[in-house]
Amino acid sequence: MNAEIITIGDEILIGQIIDTNSAFLGKELNKIGASVYQITSIQDDKAHILKALAEAEANADIIIITGGLGPTKDDITKHTLCEYFDDELVENKDVLQHIEVLFSKYISSPISDVNRQQALVPSKAKVLNNRFGTAPGMWIEKNGKIFVSLPGVPYEMKALISNQVIPELRKTFNYPYILHKTLLTHGLGESALAARIEVFEDSLPSYIKLAYLPNLGRVRLRLSAKAMDKDLVEREMEKQINLLLPQIEDIFVGYEDEASLEAAIGKQLTDLGKTLAIAESCTGGSIAQSITANAGASKYYKGSVVSYATESKIKLLNVSEDTIKQHSVVSREVVEAMAKGVLELFDANYAISTTGNAGPSKGDADAEVGTVWISIASKGRIYSEMFDFGNHREKVIKKATNKAFEMLQKEIEKK
Amino acid sequence: MNAEIITIGDEILIGQIIDTNSAFLGKELNKIGASVYQITSIQDDKAHILKALAEAEANADIIIITGGLGPTKDDITKHTLCEYFDDELVENKDVLQHIEVLFSKYISSPISDVNRQQALVPSKAKVLNNRFGTAPGMWIEKNGKIFVSLPGVPYEMKALISNQVIPELRKTFNYPYILHKTLLTHGLGESALAARIEVFEDSLPSYIKLAYLPNLGRVRLRLSAKAMDKDLVEREMEKQINLLLPQIEDIFVGYEDEASLEAAIGKQLTDLGKTLAIAESCTGGSIAQSITANAGASKYYKGSVVSYATESKIKLLNVSEDTIKQHSVVSREVVEAMAKGVLELFDANYAISTTGNAGPSKGDADAEVGTVWISIASKGRIYSEMFDFGNHREKVIKKATNKAFEMLQKEIEKK
Repeated sequence: MNAEIITIGDEILIGQIIDTNSAFLGKELNKIGASVYQITSIQDDKAHILKALAEAEANADIIIITGGLGPTKDDITKHTLCEYFDDELVENKDVLQHIEVLFSKYISSPISDVNRQQALVPSKAKVLNNRFGTAPGMWIEKNGKIFVSLPGVPYEMKALISNQVIPELRKTFNYPYILHKTLLTHGLGESALAARIEVFEDSLPSYIKLAYLPNLGRVRLRLSAKAMDKDLVEREMEKQINLLLPQIEDIFVGYEDEASLEAAIGKQLTDLGKTLAIAESCTGGSIAQSITANAGASKYYKGSVVSYATESKIKLLNVSEDTIKQHSVVSREVVEAMAKGVLELFDANYAISTTGNAGPSKGDADAEVGTVWISIASKGRIYSEMFDFGNHREKVIKKATNKAFEMLQKEIEKK
Repeated sequence: MNAEIITIGDEILIGQIIDTNSAFLGKELNKIGASVYQITSIQDDKAHILKALAEAEANADIIIITGGLGPTKDDITKHTLCEYFDDELVENKDVLQHIEVLFSKYISSPISDVNRQQALVPSKAKVLNNRFGTAPGMWIEKNGKIFVSLPGVPYEMKALISNQVIPELRKTFNYPYILHKTLLTHGLGESALAARIEVFEDSLPSYIKLAYLPNLGRVRLRLSAKAMDKDLVEREMEKQINLLLPQIEDIFVGYEDEASLEAAIGKQLTDLGKTLAIAESCTGGSIAQSITANAGASKYYKGSVVSYATESKIKLLNVSEDTIKQHSVVSREVVEAMAKGVLELFDANYAISTTGNAGPSKGDADAEVGTVWISIASKGRIYSEMFDFGNHREKVIKKATNKAFEMLQKEIEKK
């Protein structure tokens, strides 16, 4: 069962907005067993929309179209649908009433004829009521294929998909069962991992695909299964994961959607009743930000010092000026003094510290771009390591952040 | 001059990742005068890639392909390009050497034959060196059309586009000039605005298009002009904006900014020779992280305290315990004491502080979820404001971060 997504709007093609609707639609369609064959983003142009509709009709059973339903002249989706389906616009009384209510309740501008025209829909379309906006969704069937046209505003589109389109699509077709399981790993490169699990990969049944998604030292392994028999899919997925896990035991972090490494660490610390403090130099708040992105961080996270200027390392973290002079600010001695300093300052059980040069040019310390020292301290223990994270600022910061969490987790697990 | 973007990867179609590459590519292509005709996202499937390449070749002069260049079995773009161009893979010595250097310097896993295979490229391709990764970019010409295949990893793709593909494309074709100007308005609905400027819209020359981009009470008006004559485009755009502005005077906010607010603030502070320190509670390091994401932050950014635990506000930022008891930790009094405390601690010219409840549940302070106090302090001045940023944790943090920068910029501009 194939679906195709068509997103309409010049703002997508000129890069003014990022198309986030398609990812949402891809996920929701997968959940009911519909595979997205293609996502096509096109301009607000009649000929182009007609061409995209014809191509989608040839490839897919379900065609979801978003965008181009506004009241202004640049939005032409509705008229183009009429041309494609050899149809005409008729006024829908319910939609008109809804628009009038919306205007009287929430909109300060007076209602106009242009607003009322939002109640015009193709006569062959079933109307999907959009409680969050004036443009209704439209459901049109042709030769056993389903076309759904939705507004491009994300929260309007999402509500229509979840409350009306998906339940209706479930009733319309008989779908296979699709199941994705993504396993997070860290510390082993994509190709080394692939070499390690080659026999496993080659022995997978034909209806399970394996994909590698690498990102800055972490590799996600995605197993995607699709078959008509739900029990078979679930049973076989479980069996394959049980075969895979022992082979990646040392690098397995958890399942995607269930746990990020930061969330996993948060849970471990909370369970242990332990606390964390952080002293960041080159990572500039990125570690703190990753920790506090998780709800419940206040249970274990005490706080951070971002000691960007060298003087703040001395003043706040009690790093001695001599240590800095003797070893330079990017050194084992300084990163360890920072970790000890922040551990004490916040009276925490664990501390992370970083010092290095994220680039793009050499700083005060004359450390090479990409050089980062990371230290993990707990009462009576300290562990530090130096890394070269390359010459791309954003990547250095992100890699150092990921590595710090990896090192912290190892320390916690030693207890 | 048309371009087409093809993004390859199952992870896009199942909604596991949002395709951000296409928006970047759309913007960069527009800057040199190439219009993106279509963005097509497809699976890692040979037949589908071949079909997309043929269709793109029929519509566009420039075809940019991203993704599917990894070393593992699920990545098949390179082999498919060989089939499309009737070509074969040959080893490129420079790429091989680069891969070996990357592995010896940055990658802990040993280099393998699979890694070395990343040096195989179609014989007809010109290699684009990817200094951030092992998969090179490839430039292939066919019948006067340009095909460029790039890795899907965003920072690798971006560097290749900016440093190699765009400069090369500039030399290859004679482009028209494209200019977009986006005006932000607030307080008037899309259709009321359209009615107000209808005469203006109808009188626009044929090579200037007007688009309305509504979002939660704000409407962005985008004028897009395209013609071979750059002077004409610039002159006419200026003329049209001068006609438009008096008609939207009461609702005009400003022009959509290409540069980030953080980068603009960094430049202002650097020019003024002033410094910044930050005390973050509910934003948890997000403000610091946004500042240090910009290269050159060390010129003006001294550091931060992330005082997540209440005791750290007292100990590090010198907020009095009485103030907290009397007014609660989420209050004007506390946010101002934090700002003053951190200003002094880092001996900075400006300080930002935040305290609030990002949710999802009520914290120690009994402040409602979404309530955030933000303060901006400089020597002898302090300004604070309270906000309700809603009940979505991630959005509360992001909105508070954006608002803090807005407030800081206003303060800086007062000087």
